[in-house]
Amino acid sequence: MGQGGTEADSLSRILPDIINNPPRPFLDPDFMASEPSAGMVFSGGRLDRLSEERDEQTLTKAIHDEAARFIAIDAGHVLLTRTGDDTADCLFSYDGLTALNPRFDRAVLLGTGPDGPRLAVPVALSRDSLDETKFDLAKPLGAMDFRTVARKGVLTAEAYGDLCYGAALLAWHATARFCARCGGQTVMKQAGAKRQCVACERDHFPRTDAVVIMLIADKDRCLLGRSHHFPPGMYSALAGFIEPGETMEMAVRRETFEESGIRVGEVRYHSTQPWPFPHTLMIGCMGEALESDIHRDEGELDDCRWFTRDEVLAILKGDGPVDGEGEPEFFFPPAMAIANRLVTAWAEGEV
Amino acid sequence: MGQGGTEADSLSRILPDIINNPPRPFLDPDFMASEPSAGMVFSGGRLDRLSEERDEQTLTKAIHDEAARFIAIDAGHVLLTRTGDDTADCLFSYDGLTALNPRFDRAVLLGTGPDGPRLAVPVALSRDSLDETKFDLAKPLGAMDFRTVARKGVLTAEAYGDLCYGAALLAWHATARFCARCGGQTVMKQAGAKRQCVACERDHFPRTDAVVIMLIADKDRCLLGRSHHFPPGMYSALAGFIEPGETMEMAVRRETFEESGIRVGEVRYHSTQPWPFPHTLMIGCMGEALESDIHRDEGELDDCRWFTRDEVLAILKGDGPVDGEGEPEFFFPPAMAIANRLVTAWAEGEV
Repeated sequence: MGQGGTEADSLSRILPDIINNPPRPFLDPDFMASEPSAGMVFSGGRLDRLSEERDEQTLTKAIHDEAARFIAIDAGHVLLTRTGDDTADCLFSYDGLTALNPRFDRAVLLGTGPDGPRLAVPVALSRDSLDETKFDLAKPLGAMDFRTVARKGVLTAEAYGDLCYGAALLAWHATARFCARCGGQTVMKQAGAKRQCVACERDHFPRTDAVVIMLIADKDRCLLGRSHHFPPGMYSALAGFIEPGETMEMAVRRETFEESGIRVGEVRYHSTQPWPFPHTLMIGCMGEALESDIHRDEGELDDCRWFTRDEVLAILKGDGPVDGEGEPEFFFPPAMAIANRLVTAWAEGEV
Repeated sequence: MGQGGTEADSLSRILPDIINNPPRPFLDPDFMASEPSAGMVFSGGRLDRLSEERDEQTLTKAIHDEAARFIAIDAGHVLLTRTGDDTADCLFSYDGLTALNPRFDRAVLLGTGPDGPRLAVPVALSRDSLDETKFDLAKPLGAMDFRTVARKGVLTAEAYGDLCYGAALLAWHATARFCARCGGQTVMKQAGAKRQCVACERDHFPRTDAVVIMLIADKDRCLLGRSHHFPPGMYSALAGFIEPGETMEMAVRRETFEESGIRVGEVRYHSTQPWPFPHTLMIGCMGEALESDIHRDEGELDDCRWFTRDEVLAILKGDGPVDGEGEPEFFFPPAMAIANRLVTAWAEGEV
């Protein structure tokens, strides 16, 4: 848990080892197969972060390492190269980025894989190339926003994990340029693993915001709501930030009560999903509804209602009720979202 | 999850209601009795935070409400009044604080209970009164550091919860006085529920750092370590911050592998504990050890070893091995700490 980092062995640890002795894997896909968290998009990262074995020269050495590969990010979009009809790659070599205005001075080291150092770097793409309507996977090169990338499933699980990590880390660095305590300027340290204030020398570490997202249900019905900004017809699990002085279970009960007026009994942990919007940890829970009468917080929710298991199963299958134009009346977030996993797990009786 | 807050009904919601219509309780102690998280010190908070129903006048009205009660905090210490031989109270009235240099301009509203608004306020006590060696519960009034308060068990579960919440919130405000994005000054909003930059108007919300703390074990032994700063003989569960792009389970496996070289298989959630040092969420897990040979990170840990179930049970009972002076060779963190709960739960076969 210590966040110091000894300079002593760092140079001998970082780059030579990356190439000559690939780090021993500590995340074995086998035993994770049945783990709900491991099935989430963005949870496939397998890099050795070596956060404690970094010094002032680590970043420069990593950037200029022949084996280094970069994830190039601009304004919530990631740069992709086409590798097949429905597949893409988000890794670029140093030379492969030179045409794209890479900001190597703002690059961060994510860690090392068997193939060498992996970094994330901000690039400045033309606004034109960030226009979704213009994006075409048939083109050899293009930019795609994170949500679309996650929905299309064009990357490998590991690439999604590294993209989430890089996107969250770059987003944090971009908004942590000053010391919140004294107002002084901060500079990147440990190849991006932290920042430090040049005035008061306070260390600042990447922020991750813990959010509880909960499927509240009784025997036959689950509670779903829609925020004012949701597309028409979309319903999802209730969610909210864990506040100071709360346990996970307390946050589930408070948020559910504030938004729907429903009191919650037993709460069970289901899974977590890292979420790069901008740097969130979604903590998925199942909760037992203690009552039926909904008192919606109109400031928070556009609607909040009960769905029976049969309704949910039909909607998941695309057989739900339709409106006058034959459009589905209800739908849930896409499979990439933990909300979808919670709803599906409940409907299928997994939990 | 929205963090706007409508001014419309706020004045009609906040203070009048607090006094005339106590908020409907949504945390029922009954169904929480068996919940590991609910048994933790600092997890007993029951206030209605009403974070969304606060406006510019809420704080002033709350401070001057006759029924308002304040938790007075200075430099990691809380002010206490004696209520019995082994019991104390941490709530003060506005008048009760005037002699203690209260900084009402920095007070934060925690929420409302059946008895009215509850706030936390920084005070400036004499260094003398912060000297532990001078503290004496027999005195009618005194200051005690948070850890000692938690260890002594002198407060009610609810008071511990409110203290943790107030301490974490004040600690965050004290270190969030400038905008980390633009360097501008920030000001408190929503009676302390957020801060806002006067220059770029960015909202800043209280930060909670998610830490995984895990008891890694095989059938008969558990893995415990000691940081360099631990008192001699103390061993605890390994722990570390959840980093961007990680699930809870991944963080457990990475931290355990980095610190001990042990790979972890199945990971199960056990409980969470809010922890006011300064604003942390401890996420307690049980993890399955996949191997036996420890490769300790010497920068992180002073020692790391296996303890058999019998050794753990003996140490918990105070019947562990002793050194030459008859002092216990090993001990674990006090019962107030989630680490103690994890070790005890494993040793007693609860999980």
